Amino acid sequence: MASTIDSVVNLAKRRGLVYPCGEIYGGTRSAWDYGPLGVELKENIKRQWWRHMVTSRRDVVGLDSSVILPKRVWEVSGHVEVFTDPLVESLHTHKRYRADHLLEAYEEKHGHPPANGLADINDPETGQPGAWTEPKAFSGLLKTFLGPVDDKEGLHYLRPETAQGIFTNFKNVMTTSRQKPPFGIAQVGKSFRNEITPGNFIFRTREFEQMEMEFFVKPGEDEEWHQYWIDDRHQWYIDLGINPDNLRLYEHPQEKLSHYSKRTVDVEYAFHFNGSKWGELEGVANRTDYDLRVHSEGSGEDLSYYDQAADERWIPYTIEPAAGLGRAMMAFLVDAYTEEEVPNAKGGTDTRTVLKLDRRLSPVKIAVLPLSKKETLTPTAEKIADQLRGFWNVDYDTSGAIGRRYRRQDEIGTPFCVTVDFDTLEDNAVTVRERDTMEQERIKIEDLQSYFAERLAGC
Amino acid sequence: MASTIDSVVNLAKRRGLVYPCGEIYGGTRSAWDYGPLGVELKENIKRQWWRHMVTSRRDVVGLDSSVILPKRVWEVSGHVEVFTDPLVESLHTHKRYRADHLLEAYEEKHGHPPANGLADINDPETGQPGAWTEPKAFSGLLKTFLGPVDDKEGLHYLRPETAQGIFTNFKNVMTTSRQKPPFGIAQVGKSFRNEITPGNFIFRTREFEQMEMEFFVKPGEDEEWHQYWIDDRHQWYIDLGINPDNLRLYEHPQEKLSHYSKRTVDVEYAFHFNGSKWGELEGVANRTDYDLRVHSEGSGEDLSYYDQAADERWIPYTIEPAAGLGRAMMAFLVDAYTEEEVPNAKGGTDTRTVLKLDRRLSPVKIAVLPLSKKETLTPTAEKIADQLRGFWNVDYDTSGAIGRRYRRQDEIGTPFCVTVDFDTLEDNAVTVRERDTMEQERIKIEDLQSYFAERLAGC
Repeated sequence: MASTIDSVVNLAKRRGLVYPCGEIYGGTRSAWDYGPLGVELKENIKRQWWRHMVTSRRDVVGLDSSVILPKRVWEVSGHVEVFTDPLVESLHTHKRYRADHLLEAYEEKHGHPPANGLADINDPETGQPGAWTEPKAFSGLLKTFLGPVDDKEGLHYLRPETAQGIFTNFKNVMTTSRQKPPFGIAQVGKSFRNEITPGNFIFRTREFEQMEMEFFVKPGEDEEWHQYWIDDRHQWYIDLGINPDNLRLYEHPQEKLSHYSKRTVDVEYAFHFNGSKWGELEGVANRTDYDLRVHSEGSGEDLSYYDQAADERWIPYTIEPAAGLGRAMMAFLVDAYTEEEVPNAKGGTDTRTVLKLDRRLSPVKIAVLPLSKKETLTPTAEKIADQLRGFWNVDYDTSGAIGRRYRRQDEIGTPFCVTVDFDTLEDNAVTVRERDTMEQERIKIEDLQSYFAERLAGC
Repeated sequence: MASTIDSVVNLAKRRGLVYPCGEIYGGTRSAWDYGPLGVELKENIKRQWWRHMVTSRRDVVGLDSSVILPKRVWEVSGHVEVFTDPLVESLHTHKRYRADHLLEAYEEKHGHPPANGLADINDPETGQPGAWTEPKAFSGLLKTFLGPVDDKEGLHYLRPETAQGIFTNFKNVMTTSRQKPPFGIAQVGKSFRNEITPGNFIFRTREFEQMEMEFFVKPGEDEEWHQYWIDDRHQWYIDLGINPDNLRLYEHPQEKLSHYSKRTVDVEYAFHFNGSKWGELEGVANRTDYDLRVHSEGSGEDLSYYDQAADERWIPYTIEPAAGLGRAMMAFLVDAYTEEEVPNAKGGTDTRTVLKLDRRLSPVKIAVLPLSKKETLTPTAEKIADQLRGFWNVDYDTSGAIGRRYRRQDEIGTPFCVTVDFDTLEDNAVTVRERDTMEQERIKIEDLQSYFAERLAGC
């Protein structure tokens, strides 16, 4: 299982799902670009999240707030003060590491924390017993300067989470959308963190897309709603095809909770990283009334809710399911990645690589493959491809033997291949092959659209 | 017409399309947040662009590259050196302005440039004859610092355009997607500019979403392809409902072209800003082989294309249609905004505000309205709403007289209202009202889905 990640990283590069950012200039471990297939897969995940969390529900609405907010937002939220990581430098290599990451990796490997703290931890690069500087607090906020001069007045931060843009718009949204607690505001967007030790492919990167929802409830009803969202979010991954055995819920110990949290439960996936089995897909936190309260105090705006029926005024508690889009994508890829032995024409077997993605997530839904490059087949094949393109993302591939082209589509998770052959010119029908069963059906061209509409519903 | 923008800004705030960013902390003129309806409208525009430019075409693929690229990219592209604006300060108010914006506004108003340059330009705030400092070059790039220390090594830039992420991935994409020129790479994403004089609502903001496509062609075929994309992009706005009379193509004078451009034509919309009729929606530029050439030289990677059939090697020319998503949204809103007199129950007329948006763009597709709040209607109305939510974005509104609820939906461009009345409990049918004609039809509940599927095709 450990090598599945390597296989996925390799496939991702080779087939245009994910490239190292700025590769022609040497690249970096801390940022990745999404290629033609990656951007479609990412969009599909986003769309499923949005449908599940927003448009299919009565009680959640969407938002898209700015990356650069007034500086005061981050002072009031506590980020300027506490959004820091302890940084140490190796005296051997002079490379910098996050002390908490070193300690966590040790605990994950040995099953217990190091008895003597950092002193027990070997240098990750050289393997020799580590020698470390004292940990130094280091801000995870990325700075930028607005205006003509790089001074204190111009200093701003790139958001490290989308959530604060939701809290600052709470009142505007509640008023204009005719919602009242319990209700939620959801947002998908990029956040930025000054990650000193990024890594594990797209798992930890300095810019990343979040899918966050803040659900506002009456104090006292928060624990029940918290459990509701933990269960709902766990089930979402299963419904989109993740094997439940590869998921677990991780309860944050009380003493390690963030400054705003009453209880946090992570949905984790068994990535089997080098040295660490589980990785966080999303955190579901009970943020209490912390955020709305500090922003009420900090801004002077009253962010409480007046419950007319009960003649009560209270500051809502917030339940926050906060997922990482890149992490979800990585989990879907790792979980879908399959190598299986299939019979070949010579009576032996071949290894078939297939991404068993849920059809709703597959970047390409249908591949149209003319059996030969002969010009007699081209007009019909192209016409079919163009017609299907009006509805789904369609690939058109003419190069190589048909078996090889099937494999190429299996590898990127395309649920259906349409083969146009010489019989097609006679019977106006094509062969449709399904990815997982590899079964083939002869379908009339005129029925193709309804055939796929049925099988690709919800895509 | 001048006041249409004011009406749209007012509507946008009141109905939750667009809010000032960080309003509870005083807000800003230079950033805006998109509310529940705004985010849906924006997504719909993006989706139409992506379908038109990417998934419906054989020759264009998608990409999503990072905001923070290696610093060297911006040095090689020329941005560090030439992406500057001339800045002047008013000696009266000590406020800073972009000199080029002041000069353009003068020319737009008077039909000719000022004879004595800045000396002829009045102070925009006080109206008195202006007194200005000498223009000073000012970088439009927003800086940030990666890593533990804010030093030269850590200095990076937020991208001011998405295009460079496409050029640096040109070779990776061409290889993995089996494309060859003529072909394009499209991307939608946020860019950032240090705007000193933002304004006109969401027209000019410091962070903004771009919809850019770089189309790579053989040198010599560039002029023809350039004209193709100018025409195509102009037509796209018309096909999505913009009145052609409110659009024009603006040819950049040779002497004002960007450093990379051979010819640039803008698609402009008649916004009727205060002091300026036309505003740029998108620029369609012939960037020649500038970008791939400088990145070949700067990175040492060979970004030329070898045409096997002709045994020729050349660096592709790039045609770039680059649109602003916020600007497109603003144009669609302004163009759709209509106030019309309609007969009322008292024999007189009322003013009806209606957003005549193309149905594909409308943020809400269907509103379900139970005629009364009586509990007898609630279960049926909610069931209908929940079923339709599986397919479209649906609003559910119970508050106020039915006529007032119709107006509320007209104002946000909802194409269909479904009214559930007391007859519904007898005949299992509802009244469907169309936004523009206000005509009403009685439709069986069981036929609703196919009724809307037909009328909302392509949404």
